[in-house]
Amino acid sequence: MTPELTLYDLAGADAALRFSPHCWKTHMALAHKGLTAETIPWRFTEKEAIGFSGQKLVPVLVHGEHVVSDSWQIACYLEDTFPERPSLFGGDHARPLSQFVNAWADTTLVPVLARLLLPEIHGLIHDKDKDYFRATREKRFGRLEDLPAGYADRIAELRAALLPLRQTLGKQPYLAGSAPGYADYSVFGMFMWARCTSPLALLDADDPVYAWRERLLDAFGGLARRAAVRPAAQAA
Amino acid sequence: MTPELTLYDLAGADAALRFSPHCWKTHMALAHKGLTAETIPWRFTEKEAIGFSGQKLVPVLVHGEHVVSDSWQIACYLEDTFPERPSLFGGDHARPLSQFVNAWADTTLVPVLARLLLPEIHGLIHDKDKDYFRATREKRFGRLEDLPAGYADRIAELRAALLPLRQTLGKQPYLAGSAPGYADYSVFGMFMWARCTSPLALLDADDPVYAWRERLLDAFGGLARRAAVRPAAQAA
Repeated sequence: MTPELTLYDLAGADAALRFSPHCWKTHMALAHKGLTAETIPWRFTEKEAIGFSGQKLVPVLVHGEHVVSDSWQIACYLEDTFPERPSLFGGDHARPLSQFVNAWADTTLVPVLARLLLPEIHGLIHDKDKDYFRATREKRFGRLEDLPAGYADRIAELRAALLPLRQTLGKQPYLAGSAPGYADYSVFGMFMWARCTSPLALLDADDPVYAWRERLLDAFGGLARRAAVRPAAQAA
Repeated sequence: MTPELTLYDLAGADAALRFSPHCWKTHMALAHKGLTAETIPWRFTEKEAIGFSGQKLVPVLVHGEHVVSDSWQIACYLEDTFPERPSLFGGDHARPLSQFVNAWADTTLVPVLARLLLPEIHGLIHDKDKDYFRATREKRFGRLEDLPAGYADRIAELRAALLPLRQTLGKQPYLAGSAPGYADYSVFGMFMWARCTSPLALLDADDPVYAWRERLLDAFGGLARRAAVRPAAQAA
């Protein structure tokens, strides 16, 4: 019997709210492999709870004796540990290319999305995380309260940054081709980060990226579509 | 016997100067497949010479009865027509991911590089092309003579845009993994565009992208390194 899988998963004040883009990459990778992990809600300041992993960030996957951190390393671990299950990459040549897509999402989309999402996220996280979150994020992105004034520009910037994705999805249903793969999940995780935390409409409904996102929301029996999202804003 | 291959290849006033980024993708793809094409130097305004292809841009590859335009379509044609030769993509799953890398190069790098290269290119092309080139390029990028003032900013922008490539090449020798593939050539073509036309130093020598570019210059017996480049500027 294969040992159970445990995933340390970033959570909001409401432990059901799981909004990390990198943890979402792992959720989709697990589903692709037909695997289920017990998830442990984790907050930004609970560094000691994952100290056993030798670093301070989630996702962290525990599988028997094995501890793997970093969503890319987790994807590789799942691929290599469960080779008989559906491939996340589609072969040895597609893995390095998927790594580029993952790097593109992390370096190009994260900075733009952070400026769009951080103020809302600050309102959703556990009280004990708020000072840490504000201090670390404001060092990179400036005062949280100043960010909303730039939302319209940032959405335009995001849509421009998505051009290579849009152009590719105009020619094929998924980055990985006719069926989704880890390259898709590494980008889709970014959209789950937004979906779970923000009311902003990031995409036009006629954007091929929108239709692709819809398909991935429906994948694996609607795993992502069913995910808890921020409570609707209260009536003013 | 396989029919001969003919490639319509963008040329400068000096017919030996072949500087199109998209034609360079095809040169590298042909070399990867161990194929040689007769190249026909083509100038921007010679639309009628490639009218038989049903469109107005190079590269155009002619192979017996087959006429293929668009560098991506040419890569797919070569892959499918010569399956027994080294694969450009590394399998069916890597092809759609390579298409994303190609789209990334075209949508992200071309606009930045164009602003860095167009003034020099205008000085290198055939006299009969100059009015056409200026009119079409200035419509998109503004007055050619105004571009050099922005070179420092554009180089910084280019280096920032290369971040996902840099991060990936910090982890693996090529985008395609341990050996180069079409994904690499689709980005490398951009650097050949620059190398053939411009004296600007686009990369720091300690950038992993620099070392990768060096390796590709040396690939296939130094095919790209031997290519004709712009004449050195005359002494002032």
